[in-house]
Amino acid sequence: MGEPGREEYKIQSFDAETQQLLKTALKALSLPSISVNRSQHHNSQTEREATFRPVFGKCKAFLVTTCSFSTPDPGAVDLEKVANVIVDHSLQDRVFSKEAGRMCYAIIQAESKQAGQSVFRRGLLNRLQQEYQAREQLRARSPQGWVCYVTFICNIFDYLRVNNMPMMALVNPVYDCLFRLAQPDSLSEEEEVDCLVLQLHRVGEQLEKMNRQRMDELFVLIRDGFLLPTSLSSLAQLLLLEIIEFRAAGWKTTPAAHKYYYSEVSD
Amino acid sequence: MGEPGREEYKIQSFDAETQQLLKTALKALSLPSISVNRSQHHNSQTEREATFRPVFGKCKAFLVTTCSFSTPDPGAVDLEKVANVIVDHSLQDRVFSKEAGRMCYAIIQAESKQAGQSVFRRGLLNRLQQEYQAREQLRARSPQGWVCYVTFICNIFDYLRVNNMPMMALVNPVYDCLFRLAQPDSLSEEEEVDCLVLQLHRVGEQLEKMNRQRMDELFVLIRDGFLLPTSLSSLAQLLLLEIIEFRAAGWKTTPAAHKYYYSEVSD
Repeated sequence: MGEPGREEYKIQSFDAETQQLLKTALKALSLPSISVNRSQHHNSQTEREATFRPVFGKCKAFLVTTCSFSTPDPGAVDLEKVANVIVDHSLQDRVFSKEAGRMCYAIIQAESKQAGQSVFRRGLLNRLQQEYQAREQLRARSPQGWVCYVTFICNIFDYLRVNNMPMMALVNPVYDCLFRLAQPDSLSEEEEVDCLVLQLHRVGEQLEKMNRQRMDELFVLIRDGFLLPTSLSSLAQLLLLEIIEFRAAGWKTTPAAHKYYYSEVSD
Repeated sequence: MGEPGREEYKIQSFDAETQQLLKTALKALSLPSISVNRSQHHNSQTEREATFRPVFGKCKAFLVTTCSFSTPDPGAVDLEKVANVIVDHSLQDRVFSKEAGRMCYAIIQAESKQAGQSVFRRGLLNRLQQEYQAREQLRARSPQGWVCYVTFICNIFDYLRVNNMPMMALVNPVYDCLFRLAQPDSLSEEEEVDCLVLQLHRVGEQLEKMNRQRMDELFVLIRDGFLLPTSLSSLAQLLLLEIIEFRAAGWKTTPAAHKYYYSEVSD
């Protein structure tokens, strides 16, 4: 109360913008500031994805909840617990799961800079692996949770970097999740198709660079799903056709495809 | 008989290779030789098309028949009649219709060089236009003839050049034919779908350069045909998906697409 220096640590006092909140939360890690802007490799993203961008407000509300358990002594913040809370929340909230990677990246950077520690990072990756190993059960138990999980792990893959490269350890788990989404029983679920194409828009190009053969195999499944007699909805067909064109055009939307898939009015 | 110089004009005496035959036929136009090799702009063609290449033998047999009516005085060959015979034969023989453009190109060049005449060219284009105007009747009367006609006009578009550019006058008729093939009732006919994608492989890129907007519109129809509930066969779906990817990739078959669409064995 009387200490201005400590006043800053009170998570409950945050009500400014998200970046300010994140900055302050990271002061609990004794770091002066962080960079949360990591959009440099997103220049090939489509506006489809852009519609999901302005959701950081969610993260703010979340961080208030997440970090509050570490008060009143934020210096002793349990970063493994923070990692678990972030994963837990991601599995319940798809909007959050789309943006959590940015937050995780910021925390990992901060913790690493502080003292070469990686409690949060290890906690995060362990939890991701646990959920990955139990993904079939997760999908059976909670289709919504499964979609959130895939969204989250792809978002982590998108944001976490080692020497400005995606994490090799995540390549195959991410592929495995996308392969699962491309199975016939998933392709008959619009939410899973939507998730599949959204992730491919987001990380497809990077994934392909890491392992082209698996991407080729994934698109064999996608084409097969299209062509074999299945119960694909019209929307699912549209989404899959779009992603097939998107990849064929070098992970870009051509002007003609843009007009076809993204215009409200067509002749 | 006794005149060695005239001996050469006897069409019936041809039994050598097609190019030799064509050369000799064009001697009736008093030309020393012609170039029938015009493959320089075909470097982007796929091997799908290549399977239809070695059919020039057909043309040889045809030329024997066609040109024989102009004997015994080949100097007086009726080139308008030749044009009509070529079109007639193209409407009956799809293999021939795929190669006739080369022959027409050679005759047009020869006639033009001789005396700036274009009897054959005019006759050919007039006939093409007549058939074009009656294309719905042709399709109703003879689906096979209609497919042959589209194949032929596309082949003519492919070969005939003015200042090394495709003939502007053919752009819209060719597009109109392809648009007709992309209507739902045509898409439910495998032979018409096959013709559509074959022509797009062959002349799609050139057509797009001449009028991108119409190509965009054509692909709207193709995608719609794919996505709307219609009676597309599996083969038709496969063909259409392939051409959609082919165009999206810049009128190229990517290695992954090649493996998917052209390999016999798939895992």
